[in-house]
Amino acid sequence: MKIVVIGGVAAGTKAAARLKRNDRAAEVKIFTKGEDISYAGCGLPYFIGGMIPSRKQLIVNTPEKYEGLTGAEVVTGCEIKSVDTQKKTVTGIKDGREFTEHYDKLIIASGAVPFVPDMPGKDLSGVFCVRTPDDATGLSDYIRDKSCRSAVIAGAGFIGLEVAENLSSLGLDVTVVDAAPQIMPNAFDPEMADYAARRLESAGIHLLTGNKITSVLGKERAEGLATEKGDIQADVTVLAIGIRPSTAFLEGSGIKTFKGTVLTNEKMETNVPDVYAAGDCAMVSNMITGESMWSAMGSTANIAARVAANAISGKPASYRGALGTGVVRLLPDLNAGRTGMTESQARASGYDPETVVCVTDDKAHYYPGSSFFITKLIADKKTHRLLGIQVFGSGAVDKMVDIAVTGIAAKMAIEDFDTLDYAYAPPFSTAIHPFVQACYVLENKLIGELETITPAEYAAGKASDYRVIDVLPAPGIPGAEWIDLSEVNGPVPGIDKDEKLLLVCARGKRGYFLQNRLKFYGYTNTRVLEGGKTFNVVKVKAK
Amino acid sequence: MKIVVIGGVAAGTKAAARLKRNDRAAEVKIFTKGEDISYAGCGLPYFIGGMIPSRKQLIVNTPEKYEGLTGAEVVTGCEIKSVDTQKKTVTGIKDGREFTEHYDKLIIASGAVPFVPDMPGKDLSGVFCVRTPDDATGLSDYIRDKSCRSAVIAGAGFIGLEVAENLSSLGLDVTVVDAAPQIMPNAFDPEMADYAARRLESAGIHLLTGNKITSVLGKERAEGLATEKGDIQADVTVLAIGIRPSTAFLEGSGIKTFKGTVLTNEKMETNVPDVYAAGDCAMVSNMITGESMWSAMGSTANIAARVAANAISGKPASYRGALGTGVVRLLPDLNAGRTGMTESQARASGYDPETVVCVTDDKAHYYPGSSFFITKLIADKKTHRLLGIQVFGSGAVDKMVDIAVTGIAAKMAIEDFDTLDYAYAPPFSTAIHPFVQACYVLENKLIGELETITPAEYAAGKASDYRVIDVLPAPGIPGAEWIDLSEVNGPVPGIDKDEKLLLVCARGKRGYFLQNRLKFYGYTNTRVLEGGKTFNVVKVKAK
Repeated sequence: MKIVVIGGVAAGTKAAARLKRNDRAAEVKIFTKGEDISYAGCGLPYFIGGMIPSRKQLIVNTPEKYEGLTGAEVVTGCEIKSVDTQKKTVTGIKDGREFTEHYDKLIIASGAVPFVPDMPGKDLSGVFCVRTPDDATGLSDYIRDKSCRSAVIAGAGFIGLEVAENLSSLGLDVTVVDAAPQIMPNAFDPEMADYAARRLESAGIHLLTGNKITSVLGKERAEGLATEKGDIQADVTVLAIGIRPSTAFLEGSGIKTFKGTVLTNEKMETNVPDVYAAGDCAMVSNMITGESMWSAMGSTANIAARVAANAISGKPASYRGALGTGVVRLLPDLNAGRTGMTESQARASGYDPETVVCVTDDKAHYYPGSSFFITKLIADKKTHRLLGIQVFGSGAVDKMVDIAVTGIAAKMAIEDFDTLDYAYAPPFSTAIHPFVQACYVLENKLIGELETITPAEYAAGKASDYRVIDVLPAPGIPGAEWIDLSEVNGPVPGIDKDEKLLLVCARGKRGYFLQNRLKFYGYTNTRVLEGGKTFNVVKVKAK
Repeated sequence: MKIVVIGGVAAGTKAAARLKRNDRAAEVKIFTKGEDISYAGCGLPYFIGGMIPSRKQLIVNTPEKYEGLTGAEVVTGCEIKSVDTQKKTVTGIKDGREFTEHYDKLIIASGAVPFVPDMPGKDLSGVFCVRTPDDATGLSDYIRDKSCRSAVIAGAGFIGLEVAENLSSLGLDVTVVDAAPQIMPNAFDPEMADYAARRLESAGIHLLTGNKITSVLGKERAEGLATEKGDIQADVTVLAIGIRPSTAFLEGSGIKTFKGTVLTNEKMETNVPDVYAAGDCAMVSNMITGESMWSAMGSTANIAARVAANAISGKPASYRGALGTGVVRLLPDLNAGRTGMTESQARASGYDPETVVCVTDDKAHYYPGSSFFITKLIADKKTHRLLGIQVFGSGAVDKMVDIAVTGIAAKMAIEDFDTLDYAYAPPFSTAIHPFVQACYVLENKLIGELETITPAEYAAGKASDYRVIDVLPAPGIPGAEWIDLSEVNGPVPGIDKDEKLLLVCARGKRGYFLQNRLKFYGYTNTRVLEGGKTFNVVKVKAK
């Protein structure tokens, strides 16, 4: 059997290696455009920031080493121009000469390329994408050679923000611009993105969301970006707007795509017999909805490629779908992770979601380096099934996400986590796991035991007619009425039982305690501000 | 309703606080022996090591603060002497005077006390347990006041080893002795414990397992421990042998116990109506087997106490059982975590387990601070259901454990993890999650694609008649035949096709690659050494 693999980065090399292990008699041939194969695309921002000092470290395998290790053949510097699915051939160009190669099975793993808007100045020196090791070394060299002191980054997705953090750590003055009204769109709900944005801005990274770029400034070299809302001067410009699947060569092949991305089934088969696809050029399915989904991530590429290879080899193979999982280091002390549906995605998919934003310790509060998680859980109001999570923290947000991934895959309701025996010791976690604590809070909300104003509601002004009650251990909210929680053993003088009261503390917990008591003493209109002062920007109107 | 709670550390305070939130009208009264309530027992080793500088930090709440926050009443310095379940009263002594208190509902949360063998010298100055803040401050003060330079610790369980690490970090010469043949018995299989033991010994901590202590040395103060195998001189002696439930006062109450530990159902009810138990004095169930299990952990105490409180308040409450989860920092660069069944426990419970020990990156190999996980997975051979995990690493072993906890709770087979969309970015993980990689390796073993010698088998001499083949990238195993993996494209000259070959590399992966090829070329008797040189002490017999 002869298997042709188009593309030699994550999915292509993974599939080819697995195919050879499944059947060393198979002839497996990778055609790839660049000279580097199997490089660590996800590591590029950290190379730019200097954390990964050498370009070599980004290259997992050279073609020679890879061939030796796997037995697959690698043809670099060659571009596939077309696929004939009738004749079962691919046609391409190598060293200026056209060639045609027959296949029994074909894997399309041609990846994606950065999207660069067709705008003036886009080809100026000093404009960089962040997709290949050459991009990264180009950017790094440029910053050093031109002694760049400022950078503008178009795109506030994960990669744009990773580059922002790394350039900021090098001492550059960094501005990130995005057309979307928030950073990390689709990944985080707006109020969560706003929190991260405030933290980034506090750390000196400028953010300009809801702002479209129109051209690259400068004549001889890039001097920043022009936007609809004005010019942003910068010594170097990075475009991290997004990527587009590299599938133009499939035109006329009969292979079905959606917006250029190859459609696949659970075996990573396309609509055409013997043709498979995996990696950034391919669609997968969403595990929750079953719908087609583009998950252009290194992790998805590896997993889907393994499935494709096993399917070709006649082994059990079924890709159960992606969850849009992501994790990112936004600042040295701020990680962000997410999986599943955001609140708005859940609503758009027909769910009636209930959510909570809660703040918990991330490990024993007395252990050095302990900090907090900010966790937003999204569950279905009817079934209580967990639908998604978004987490911030200086610590192990990936742990919180991985628990959610497992739980969502197992279709668990939030109550199913209540008594699980999670790992606890002071250097690692809390006696009741932060994930479980978040479930408890959401459960309290679902049964009406906890009544809240969510951060999103608060930001939208829903609490504007509420009187703010300061539930901190000592008065700490200027203009608010402070109540000493431990002294509330009956009605509070001067506060009407049907008055609208917004209970605000550091995280939400003392507010919950006070609400619990006030309800007992007959108060009917209290609301706890989820996430308290830690998450929200609390302002009390002057009377 | 009047609820009496016996005990005011983890379970007692948790239950009482929850009860008051469930119904502020309820009268909730805690009787507790010590003066400290709600202290962080799990943090004591880190206080001793100086990481937690002040005793105050170990005290979560003073009685006064706790009463103010919760509305529960706390009576300290009082010992309950008996329970009359007919009259529904408890009788105790406070300030030398006996008192009797009626209850509608009773929660027994009396905890446990250190087990101190009745041996000569046990009451000498310089002998310490590690159970209460007073124990910890006593030990700390003694080490400082007597300028101790060496310590002997009886007990190589989690607490003994945590204390060992902390005392070692203070510069003391530390010896740990245990009657069991291995460290961390019941928690880790012997070959896993052996690995940890080698690491501890390399770090200068002396271990003497399979060695019973017989007395404390010294006349005026402790000068070490006498053991069956000789004396261990030390300036200070720590007993961390185990704990015993504090339930002697229940004698005659009709409340059923097993080896002194109160038996409970899934609502934490005892056999006697209106009497509940939680915490270190109570049994829970094993989630996998459903059998009674003693899980004397802070996490279990908190979770079970919450269940008991909710059950009393008529809320949904069901404790699904513990998994024997544990996580421990053994050295600054060695964490250990586990959950579920060990291999031997699985066998004893009637399973036919398959296992694997594998070594994987813990995050992107090029990211600074990346290291490896050593993971042992245990699954049922018939159903492939995950039964347990044991993990070592310098990084997030707790993450690996928490994934397993969730998966075991959801009765997942190892294949169910294969395509899960776990969180990946270079600072956090690898493109294929280390947990999933471990599943892949075990699956390969289960279908016969990977044939191995396990570390346990290797240590037991099962590979003694195998010829060792060095599969490292460059020769690195003295006395072994080195094979260049990338050059194996047919039969290897000088090696017989039915010769017994043990393929050894750094971690097991290159060995697997070579086995895959050798099998293709007709070799019939190859075995890969699981965990390679990283895990095993590889010795090649001189010919």
